[in-house]
Amino acid sequence: MRVLAKAVTDIARKDVARTDSVQKAASRLEPGQAVELSGWVHRIRELGGVSFIMLRDRSGLVQLVLEEKTDLTLESVITVQGLAALNDKAPGGAEVRVQNLRVLSRAEPDLPFPVNGDVTKIGLDVILDNRPLSLRNPRIRSIFRVQSTIIEAFAEYLRKENFTEIKTSKLIGSGTEGGTGLFEVDYFDKKVYLAQSPQFYKQTMIASGLERVFEIAPAYRAEKHDTPRHLNEYVSLDVEMAFISSEADLIELEKHLLAHIFEALARTNAEDLALWNATVPDPDSVFKAPTIAHDEGLELARSEASRGGSTAGVSSKSGGGQSFFEISPEVERLLCAWAGREKGIELVFVNQFPRRHRPFYTYPSSATHTMSFDALFRGLEITTGGRRQEQYQALLDVLPRFGLKAEDLKDYLMVFKYGCPPHGGFAIGCERLTQKVLGLTNVKEASLFPRDRRRVSP
Amino acid sequence: MRVLAKAVTDIARKDVARTDSVQKAASRLEPGQAVELSGWVHRIRELGGVSFIMLRDRSGLVQLVLEEKTDLTLESVITVQGLAALNDKAPGGAEVRVQNLRVLSRAEPDLPFPVNGDVTKIGLDVILDNRPLSLRNPRIRSIFRVQSTIIEAFAEYLRKENFTEIKTSKLIGSGTEGGTGLFEVDYFDKKVYLAQSPQFYKQTMIASGLERVFEIAPAYRAEKHDTPRHLNEYVSLDVEMAFISSEADLIELEKHLLAHIFEALARTNAEDLALWNATVPDPDSVFKAPTIAHDEGLELARSEASRGGSTAGVSSKSGGGQSFFEISPEVERLLCAWAGREKGIELVFVNQFPRRHRPFYTYPSSATHTMSFDALFRGLEITTGGRRQEQYQALLDVLPRFGLKAEDLKDYLMVFKYGCPPHGGFAIGCERLTQKVLGLTNVKEASLFPRDRRRVSP
Repeated sequence: MRVLAKAVTDIARKDVARTDSVQKAASRLEPGQAVELSGWVHRIRELGGVSFIMLRDRSGLVQLVLEEKTDLTLESVITVQGLAALNDKAPGGAEVRVQNLRVLSRAEPDLPFPVNGDVTKIGLDVILDNRPLSLRNPRIRSIFRVQSTIIEAFAEYLRKENFTEIKTSKLIGSGTEGGTGLFEVDYFDKKVYLAQSPQFYKQTMIASGLERVFEIAPAYRAEKHDTPRHLNEYVSLDVEMAFISSEADLIELEKHLLAHIFEALARTNAEDLALWNATVPDPDSVFKAPTIAHDEGLELARSEASRGGSTAGVSSKSGGGQSFFEISPEVERLLCAWAGREKGIELVFVNQFPRRHRPFYTYPSSATHTMSFDALFRGLEITTGGRRQEQYQALLDVLPRFGLKAEDLKDYLMVFKYGCPPHGGFAIGCERLTQKVLGLTNVKEASLFPRDRRRVSP
Repeated sequence: MRVLAKAVTDIARKDVARTDSVQKAASRLEPGQAVELSGWVHRIRELGGVSFIMLRDRSGLVQLVLEEKTDLTLESVITVQGLAALNDKAPGGAEVRVQNLRVLSRAEPDLPFPVNGDVTKIGLDVILDNRPLSLRNPRIRSIFRVQSTIIEAFAEYLRKENFTEIKTSKLIGSGTEGGTGLFEVDYFDKKVYLAQSPQFYKQTMIASGLERVFEIAPAYRAEKHDTPRHLNEYVSLDVEMAFISSEADLIELEKHLLAHIFEALARTNAEDLALWNATVPDPDSVFKAPTIAHDEGLELARSEASRGGSTAGVSSKSGGGQSFFEISPEVERLLCAWAGREKGIELVFVNQFPRRHRPFYTYPSSATHTMSFDALFRGLEITTGGRRQEQYQALLDVLPRFGLKAEDLKDYLMVFKYGCPPHGGFAIGCERLTQKVLGLTNVKEASLFPRDRRRVSP
């Protein structure tokens, strides 16, 4: 009866789009009652002069029974009228016996790959080259329903905590942290750059008095990496908050955010998660995630590596006693595996990064370390953040050490020259979080139209 | 008592950021009870050895009483501890008698303009050149609280109607509608462009089977206009919906969306609206907005012009009997003035644009006209939309007339080659809607960091 109910929902919905009210109430139909459905031809089976058509729309599949042979092509969009009927042998236990069938848009028969097939057998390049078609596969499409929930839950939690959503320019007049890693744009008679992050604008909004802001927007990295963890364009889920004491306040906020996102996913995307055999962490377990100082994290990774490497099928390349000098992808995997084993969740916050590893605006916690952190989830860094320096003179003093000049940072420094509260923030990579929630092999799978060094279309 | 209550809320909130839970419940304080507040020094008045300081944060202003002279500078960020007290003469009827005061961040005394002054006396260039400071003015900051609500309500309504939020690339491999109006980006060894709209990606997602999608993202127009209605980078509120019959379904959806946005603004932004003497239309009145065919709209504008021009202080340059040949800014004002007078709301939907005024993908309603529409609100076009052509052969047929080649549109055409339902959509300009809700003179005022031909910073 479940598919029948779905079909009914669909009729109501599609009917609505054709009438003068998008809020028309849905009404229930019963077996034998007239049904009108629209969707894509997912599969066709002929049996003794009868055609069994699996009709697909975003809500699922329903079997149509046509008392004749058909020249329909796969992926054509059709509208049918018929009578709903129970049939134990049909998927979901119901089918529609077709009385009228109209082709709204006929698909050419030369599909480059079987849309209704097993996507694990199709290479990633084929999937991405044919994005308009591969997204029709229910399993692939489900990735982006999950992503939609992540974005919704992120904003929902922050609004509840009185954060204001902002939209800042992605075209910046100069590369404030130096020109490397920036894409250049021809802007009338000037050269400008695509923003790597809304970092400086978030800080401006803190100092403006909004105090708590978030932004959901694209960010750009002109890095030549071509790895399963990098994108040149990604969706950055950015947060900035005033009147914090240290990065501990930010880690606390991120735990609440992640717990809320996981709760929302478990509640609204159960079917999508099931398609990937994925589960989200229990929201309560998020608060058991450990925080480890950077230097201790490296030590712990060394001891984990000597213990025999990480879990979850990721074999450690390192022998016993190997030293690590930064939070490398290997260290990220080792620390998450350790947390999974010891704390019951593969989520680790690493804080107190050395000053040399962090940008000039990071607030120092000592002569050598900073109030900064990364969040590692299921073996991957999904967040970088920290408290920022808000003291004007301290910023002026630190610039030369980073090879920067106050003249080049005039707009940025104005934020601090005229009074700025203690503050900090972080960003979650939306595609990375999507990837790790579903267990996708490559972050590109979690971007609708990914951009890498070679790929600029579709 | 209102300010006291606000101060109390703030203590709770700021305290929260310093403790281990961002969800700690707020507790009420009573007059005489200890208060800790943080904020910006908005105004200082000395009177017989006593300093009266107006402390500002995003929730408002509160008076601090300090029993000594002070060397504080305006805009410095401070934290005070003291006792809450009632005082009928203080704004809001309450004040805080300071026991401890700590300067968190001292502002330099050379403010380029008075942040606490009347912003109508400051030129727009000064406001935008000094964005980090001008945003501290409560009236200016309120613009972006209104914008945050518009974005939230837009997404909220569409999610309720089962639309999925998508995030698509802003870097496109080729200018599908020709290269004019596009910003060029150096992308490794290639040239790519900043997307003018997510048009083609929205359509791809319709055909993918998501059926209903929306996107909130930046869009780029490399147009040399420098007018109060143009931005080179703006936030586009995009919608696309499958299984529609004509643009009438889209107009109906936009009415519901606008009604929902207006209702949300009236409910959550009453104080912000009051700062601009602005009111939003009654949500019910939105459904009284007329739809006029393009050609009739021009006729109506002619008769309105001859009637004596538009209202609201905009004088018509046209004498009696002037003809119009397109929906110009003057026509937009005349039609909205007419609707305001005759229908009680300055909102007009103009549909049935001639084919020559619309892009190649617009669905024809006749040999000469299209299933397209604009929405005009308070004298300004805020939306363009329409049904799109979903028939593969019809698209192939129409391309030559627009000087386009199928080879250059291969990715786009794949969407239709393999089955695409009837569909359409529209986009609302977020800054334009913000501008018209508040009655701002220039759309740049409604962009946090606006980009125009000359302005690329801050």
